[in-house]
Amino acid sequence: MLIRINMSTKEVVKEILPEKYFFLGGRGLTSRLLLDEVDPSCEVLGPQNKLVIAPGLLGGTAAPCSGRISIGAKSPLTGGIKESNGGGIAARKLAKLGIRALVIEGQPQEDNFFLLKVTNDGVEILPADELEGLGNYETVKILLGKYGDKNGIISIGPAGERGYSTASVAITDMEGIPCRHCGRGGMGAVMGSKKIKAIVIDDSNTTNITYKDEKTFKEVSREWARELVVTRKTLTDYGTAGNLSLINTLGCLPTRNFSCGVFEDAEKLCGEKLREIIQTRNGKASHACQQGCVIRCSNIFTDADGKVVTSSLEYETIALLGSNCGISDIDFIAKLDRFCDDFGIDTMELGATIGVMMEAGVLNFGDQKKMMSLIDEMKNDTLIGKMMGQGATLTGKVLGVRRIPAVKGQSLAAYDPRGLKSTGVTYATSTMGGDHTAGNCLPGRLGYRPKTKDQEFIKTKEGIVELSKDVQIMTTLCDICGFCFFVGPTPDTVDRVAKLVNARWGTTITFDDLIELSKQVINTEVEFNERAGLPQTLNGLPEFFYTEKLSPQNYIFDISKTKLKNIFKND
Amino acid sequence: MLIRINMSTKEVVKEILPEKYFFLGGRGLTSRLLLDEVDPSCEVLGPQNKLVIAPGLLGGTAAPCSGRISIGAKSPLTGGIKESNGGGIAARKLAKLGIRALVIEGQPQEDNFFLLKVTNDGVEILPADELEGLGNYETVKILLGKYGDKNGIISIGPAGERGYSTASVAITDMEGIPCRHCGRGGMGAVMGSKKIKAIVIDDSNTTNITYKDEKTFKEVSREWARELVVTRKTLTDYGTAGNLSLINTLGCLPTRNFSCGVFEDAEKLCGEKLREIIQTRNGKASHACQQGCVIRCSNIFTDADGKVVTSSLEYETIALLGSNCGISDIDFIAKLDRFCDDFGIDTMELGATIGVMMEAGVLNFGDQKKMMSLIDEMKNDTLIGKMMGQGATLTGKVLGVRRIPAVKGQSLAAYDPRGLKSTGVTYATSTMGGDHTAGNCLPGRLGYRPKTKDQEFIKTKEGIVELSKDVQIMTTLCDICGFCFFVGPTPDTVDRVAKLVNARWGTTITFDDLIELSKQVINTEVEFNERAGLPQTLNGLPEFFYTEKLSPQNYIFDISKTKLKNIFKND
Repeated sequence: MLIRINMSTKEVVKEILPEKYFFLGGRGLTSRLLLDEVDPSCEVLGPQNKLVIAPGLLGGTAAPCSGRISIGAKSPLTGGIKESNGGGIAARKLAKLGIRALVIEGQPQEDNFFLLKVTNDGVEILPADELEGLGNYETVKILLGKYGDKNGIISIGPAGERGYSTASVAITDMEGIPCRHCGRGGMGAVMGSKKIKAIVIDDSNTTNITYKDEKTFKEVSREWARELVVTRKTLTDYGTAGNLSLINTLGCLPTRNFSCGVFEDAEKLCGEKLREIIQTRNGKASHACQQGCVIRCSNIFTDADGKVVTSSLEYETIALLGSNCGISDIDFIAKLDRFCDDFGIDTMELGATIGVMMEAGVLNFGDQKKMMSLIDEMKNDTLIGKMMGQGATLTGKVLGVRRIPAVKGQSLAAYDPRGLKSTGVTYATSTMGGDHTAGNCLPGRLGYRPKTKDQEFIKTKEGIVELSKDVQIMTTLCDICGFCFFVGPTPDTVDRVAKLVNARWGTTITFDDLIELSKQVINTEVEFNERAGLPQTLNGLPEFFYTEKLSPQNYIFDISKTKLKNIFKND
Repeated sequence: MLIRINMSTKEVVKEILPEKYFFLGGRGLTSRLLLDEVDPSCEVLGPQNKLVIAPGLLGGTAAPCSGRISIGAKSPLTGGIKESNGGGIAARKLAKLGIRALVIEGQPQEDNFFLLKVTNDGVEILPADELEGLGNYETVKILLGKYGDKNGIISIGPAGERGYSTASVAITDMEGIPCRHCGRGGMGAVMGSKKIKAIVIDDSNTTNITYKDEKTFKEVSREWARELVVTRKTLTDYGTAGNLSLINTLGCLPTRNFSCGVFEDAEKLCGEKLREIIQTRNGKASHACQQGCVIRCSNIFTDADGKVVTSSLEYETIALLGSNCGISDIDFIAKLDRFCDDFGIDTMELGATIGVMMEAGVLNFGDQKKMMSLIDEMKNDTLIGKMMGQGATLTGKVLGVRRIPAVKGQSLAAYDPRGLKSTGVTYATSTMGGDHTAGNCLPGRLGYRPKTKDQEFIKTKEGIVELSKDVQIMTTLCDICGFCFFVGPTPDTVDRVAKLVNARWGTTITFDDLIELSKQVINTEVEFNERAGLPQTLNGLPEFFYTEKLSPQNYIFDISKTKLKNIFKND
């Protein structure tokens, strides 16, 4: 079922999911609905844009790590289509309620904020005046107190209310903390433009998901879970920050606004150090953000007194707000992370924005005191705060900075594309802008085709492009199903997804069908973007990645724009 | 001849004009060279963009009002192709030197500014350190003093040096005043990115333009000039401000950020009043900006003491910095105009930017004191000044304003599109963004086809679109030839242009050929824009023009986006 919530008329309508959308969950459904129903040239924060919230095709099931939620809209940051997904408990609850998507349309005449209450009876639109201006932490505390602490909450902070293009949407985790974020692309601003402060999801009157072939489903899930526990041990032990030492050693850790690939204080920020600190302080070094997660890459970071500061402190946040800003104080980064979660803003985009401001000389690299004062500017919604809220590209434009590490208006993630070139290709070609979650190609990653499984081929320029393409396709499949990227966008995953989908729904889908489905979803997004003014012919990275060698390894991004054009077109 | 000036290598190369460019002057040549030589996705202020400066195909001749100069580049404001043309004496001198275009390429490693000295011997690149940071007035004064007051000067002010996206390029007039501006689209920022502060043009060792058939050329020119003197009398007497009363009466004078179409103090800003003030103060109510101008719509505005404030005070400036900001003090507007000319910034974009800031509550409509303090912010290059320098769209985005009167990132001119719909279609569909100079359809304007000459048809929705298309095509022809728009984009003009071109060059071009040529130039621009991410499918106006009635006439822009798509494609 789809539930449409029209914020202009305050009407709520339940619809049977059209047959053509059957295999589309998560990003598949958000993107398809946007292409079918939204004018790509519409005003982003106006009544014509729609916010679509969808659990994955396997949401609510016993498949490991299948509970991510997709939030999609035309993005205020890129101007193109966007899907941003996050963990937490909301997707599972929506799936159990039989909801394939919430489609939020229109725009109220009123200036005050509303709350959506989602239950087995449908969706109610309630006033939320008392929540206006509150951070996500306080918002969630009030709502869980009022409606019961078993509810899942989707909410925005002040950034989303104000329409900052970098505003995130927060999802509560199993402890009821609003720390899982659909961070990228400004989905929080679109939710704010619909005047929705929060969505409370109550699945108390539901039963568990049923399966056409429960035995097979559970067997495949169990086997996969067992394997993940073994193969993802580094993620379990060190979280995503476990990557930091590797990326630093490879020489592609964004440092001082992407001017260097190695940070001299990397050992103060790495996963090993993070684990040590957390364990000393009785935090949690390993923690699941959702039911059915066997990887447990999340953590709970505490201060020296053992008080919870934030959850989860992630690699991308540490690198962008840390090394990229010349910061080596992990406690300081944790505080910024807490601020971002509460204020409702993307940590990566903020780190890139401050990096650009440091390059412009607004403050020095490493200046923690001035960074905190900039955070105050954002809290106080001053002109400088508003500018920062629009992200790195706009900030860099105002400040006259040429080295802006962003693609399609969205800042890059914590891998310098000169050192990790297939991920660079993903930044350059993804429909999502500079976004590693669209297809991160860490060392060891292979594709699904014979040629992209060839270790030598994927080192060639053609292979670098082809690998990114495969990984983007397989990642899209994860996003359609609601799988966490960390189960791996690999051929094994595709095989397992085929079995699980068929066991869940009684279908006969194959490996090739799933690849085709994922390509179709990407092409949906390509089409939206073409019509929104982000054609594939514009694929590329900012010029400095092509012309400025990355110290100390002297990497250069040498995949020509010609090779990056139309990699998904007519495919 | 083309002269290429490579600012990376400091090489200057003369080239024979390729045969395929023969009929391309002015905008025709700037746009064609950009499409042929510049990657539309390049970094706007980087070394790959090119700045092309071209007199018209009839530049330097005795044809009336044929001395406009075209400056083209990928625009920092729209991100697409741009041609901005202006009056003054530079084009005539370039034409006499046999230069069809100066093509400025590359980018210096150095941070200091240079000067181009153009003579019959070619182009010299000279240091210009002593001019850095100076306004256009001081710059020109120094250069005319140093090189002789007969020279023509093309220069930028601090705005261009700093890369403000709204920076203009100034051209000196016959009095050696830098008051004719290629104002739109930020061409000054591109010139600044090439580190060129000024271009001094010395045509002292040249002879007059020759003609294949001088008798015919002069006959046609004389007849046309005689006619213009009669038919353009209002322009001669009142300048472009002569429009203001009419536009106010029609109810489409931008007032308080396009929230009303009538300004209560219009009589303080209108052409009649302007003429009266100028005459009382011994200024010049009618004045030619270039040799061979028989319309003389320019003026010289003096203060109460008879001291020259600015030349020429134009309708667009008066409306955007006046009624659009709730200002009715013409002396104040003249001061702002002087600032813009000196600082090197587009008056229209500044007026629209301040209007948007007023809407956001940064200052009140009509607050002259605060407006002057904002000008100081720009002079001082503060954060707020930098933001304003980026124009209305970016400023509105930072401030969270939804009513931004701009298309493709460029602010609209002084005709509310709800009241003057064919001009609205031009804003929506032009390759140049929200720009009346691409095809202004004032009342009485007709097209060149039988149907667009039908007064009833051009009142229909289809006719409104078709008229804009015709006028855009005929305007393009004016821009190719170097004609001032005020000779009129009419069939008569096309006929005369055919005769003049043939008499000048010994060709046999026809009316239809010229229309076809103009269409080709537009299609060149369409192609560049498609590849730059500004496809024709995105044609449209900001949503509020479709949804918000324009007081007091309750006009609405009701030409659907579908009708605006691809109006030039496959044509």
